[in-house]
Amino acid sequence: MVILAARYRPRRTLGAMKTIDTIISARWVIPVEPDGACLDRHSVAVDNGVIVDVLPTAAAEKKYRGRETIELAEHALIPGLVNAHTHAAMTLFRGLADDLPLMDWLNRHIWPAEAKWVGPEFVRDGSELAAAEMLKSGTTCFNDMYFFPEETAQVVHATGLRACLGMILIDFPTAYAQSPDDYLDKGLALHDTWRNSELISTAFAPHAPYTVSDGPLEKICTLNNELNLPVHMHVHETAFEVEQALAKHKLRPLARLKKLDLLGPQLAAVHMTQLLPEEIAALAGNGAHVLHCPQSNLKLASGFCPVHALMQAGVNVALGTDGAASNNDLDMLDELRSAALLAKAVAADPTALPAASALRMATLNGARALGLDERIGSLTAGKAADITAIDLGCISSQPVYDPISQIVYAAGRDQVTDVWVAGKRLLHTGRLTTLDEAEILAKAKQWRDKISGK
Amino acid sequence: MVILAARYRPRRTLGAMKTIDTIISARWVIPVEPDGACLDRHSVAVDNGVIVDVLPTAAAEKKYRGRETIELAEHALIPGLVNAHTHAAMTLFRGLADDLPLMDWLNRHIWPAEAKWVGPEFVRDGSELAAAEMLKSGTTCFNDMYFFPEETAQVVHATGLRACLGMILIDFPTAYAQSPDDYLDKGLALHDTWRNSELISTAFAPHAPYTVSDGPLEKICTLNNELNLPVHMHVHETAFEVEQALAKHKLRPLARLKKLDLLGPQLAAVHMTQLLPEEIAALAGNGAHVLHCPQSNLKLASGFCPVHALMQAGVNVALGTDGAASNNDLDMLDELRSAALLAKAVAADPTALPAASALRMATLNGARALGLDERIGSLTAGKAADITAIDLGCISSQPVYDPISQIVYAAGRDQVTDVWVAGKRLLHTGRLTTLDEAEILAKAKQWRDKISGK
Repeated sequence: MVILAARYRPRRTLGAMKTIDTIISARWVIPVEPDGACLDRHSVAVDNGVIVDVLPTAAAEKKYRGRETIELAEHALIPGLVNAHTHAAMTLFRGLADDLPLMDWLNRHIWPAEAKWVGPEFVRDGSELAAAEMLKSGTTCFNDMYFFPEETAQVVHATGLRACLGMILIDFPTAYAQSPDDYLDKGLALHDTWRNSELISTAFAPHAPYTVSDGPLEKICTLNNELNLPVHMHVHETAFEVEQALAKHKLRPLARLKKLDLLGPQLAAVHMTQLLPEEIAALAGNGAHVLHCPQSNLKLASGFCPVHALMQAGVNVALGTDGAASNNDLDMLDELRSAALLAKAVAADPTALPAASALRMATLNGARALGLDERIGSLTAGKAADITAIDLGCISSQPVYDPISQIVYAAGRDQVTDVWVAGKRLLHTGRLTTLDEAEILAKAKQWRDKISGK
Repeated sequence: MVILAARYRPRRTLGAMKTIDTIISARWVIPVEPDGACLDRHSVAVDNGVIVDVLPTAAAEKKYRGRETIELAEHALIPGLVNAHTHAAMTLFRGLADDLPLMDWLNRHIWPAEAKWVGPEFVRDGSELAAAEMLKSGTTCFNDMYFFPEETAQVVHATGLRACLGMILIDFPTAYAQSPDDYLDKGLALHDTWRNSELISTAFAPHAPYTVSDGPLEKICTLNNELNLPVHMHVHETAFEVEQALAKHKLRPLARLKKLDLLGPQLAAVHMTQLLPEEIAALAGNGAHVLHCPQSNLKLASGFCPVHALMQAGVNVALGTDGAASNNDLDMLDELRSAALLAKAVAADPTALPAASALRMATLNGARALGLDERIGSLTAGKAADITAIDLGCISSQPVYDPISQIVYAAGRDQVTDVWVAGKRLLHTGRLTTLDEAEILAKAKQWRDKISGK
């Protein structure tokens, strides 16, 4: 495992060479586009935060001169992981209440804890803890839904991460907002603040069909005719949710969303464990996205998302960890493995969701669901340099017959060594460059003492 | 994360104090017995390889003087993990063939590769690679089934690990043995060689009902009337296996084992994804053990083991990774999390297999299945000092409200810092003390080049 960082190499033949910011040369480059490709001894050339070339290392040495040259002799480079569903600040509630049914967990534990503790400081500290965990496990972009997203935006901005932040909306009042209109106003202000940001985008984030009534959903629909943003929403998480909706609205939640004109290419529907064949067809036909959170669904016994059937039907399925209060981590490599394993069992087909498709689910498909696939999701010239390096030189990855298989079925977050977002190295040989880990740890302990009443 | 290793502390009050080998003081001690206990600031006192006391650190400081004193300020101590089903040497086939159906995987990939490559050297090198991976992820004991177990025994002995090694038996000839009698003779020789070992025990290991005929199974049964060893066998792994057995024997495999008098407290049946309610009752009534391998079952789409129903019926369910060719790792913390998550979804009950039960499944239940529960499986005075230390001081474990929950739902193998087997520290702050990691890596690469024809 030789990592030669930031070496400047003067060369003799200067004529035809182009000077760029960074050349990252790795044992393997897995670009995700084209699907299944694994490039041997390749380099990613980066300039001004953008990938300008992906080419054999031997060719890169003749074509480019890097102000910084990085050699990762035992590593694979993959596109930065895209965590398509998070509640980042809730990381401060990790493990607070486990082994409980969803509604009990929400009504008796999470919602009371939120009522008591959630405010700007909580969201700022929780988002920092989440950002640190995500970077250390290879995630470069996350799609968040939580209160006080302005605080999360500040953390994302200061850290240099990429995120799509939800303009959260829920019928009932919280410390963050008093009414659906209040939520919307605050959300739109967030959108305005960051509308020209390279790294921060926004989405409408109505919590779920069972917590948001028709009026606010219609407003979102009207507003989105102009803004054309993703609509990030929990949908069909449990059988109970569907039953309740049938009793109250005489419609299954997805049918209600269709009636409200929300079933379209903007819809990024989280969970989707309860799906009829005609609903899968409707999702595909309308270009909606599914944000799959396998570990959360398992832990809360919510049901099984029919991933293979969705993908066979042509639905774009992205991958998320959900909040650390329900998962209980933000580890996309672990989630990726769970998704790849579970899809086979649910489909009763061991060829379902093969390794390369699982990796695409955790990168490019996430970018597509967030409307960011022209900018991120694969290692392709012209896209932003959001890159994760995984060390395959350790004991638990030997022997390496197939690097993609090793990453999906055997690699752990401990093998993530370096992470770049828009060309900036936010994780450098395992160390965070823009976050103070000791301070984050100290704050997490303070919150634990406070919340657990110690 | 302060680890003060091997400090000798002279003390003033020498009178009533007892001098022992080692005192390990940790932020938390999770003994597994009693069930669910998490002891705050406790110490484990070890002498001659045996746990002599588990007590508050403040009391330990008055009662014992350790020749070695270890303070693990942010760690939890748990009993060493027991991997109840492995094919250790197959680690050299990790990732060789993925995303395939079981019989295709066996017939077209694994069995041909075995025919070509498996011999004493392969088994020795593969077992070393496995031993290194297991120790680094907190496993202290494994239950193995593979060819040339004499080689695995030598590796286990040299490393200082604990293992139950299978006397493998399969109808067809291999490089290891020519006939069922030849397998049995070699197995019994292995048993004789290690019968007085503290760390190595043996089990009968007929591969599966579909690969071993009645005659050899009857012989095992007769021999085991005297030897009283575990019978380690794949049973009801797939629906196909059950169908085949019905066609050939007019009996489901478990019924055939019962007829052959093998359904008893010695039976350690691996996988068990196809179970009728009356079969669950029969397993419970006869005291048989189930060795659950959730990730392997998912990956090969073999089916879902009804873990919650088995445990409710009183069956002892232990946990195994299966071989790295099918899992693709030997990481018991990862398997533990998969088991805890999956059991809830399969039972449609989020309270199924709570964290403490999952941890017991990966420790004490494994010891029981191997007939070793009087010696290992919990941190209890009188048992061998097989101990794993997990650092809960890192970002991805914050905040720590409940250490057991953190270990089961969020901890990774990277948090395993120290491992003791029979009081010997085989992993010391992340470094193997009895294995040469660089040499193992080099050998794994040589095997990769050879096997992939490079």
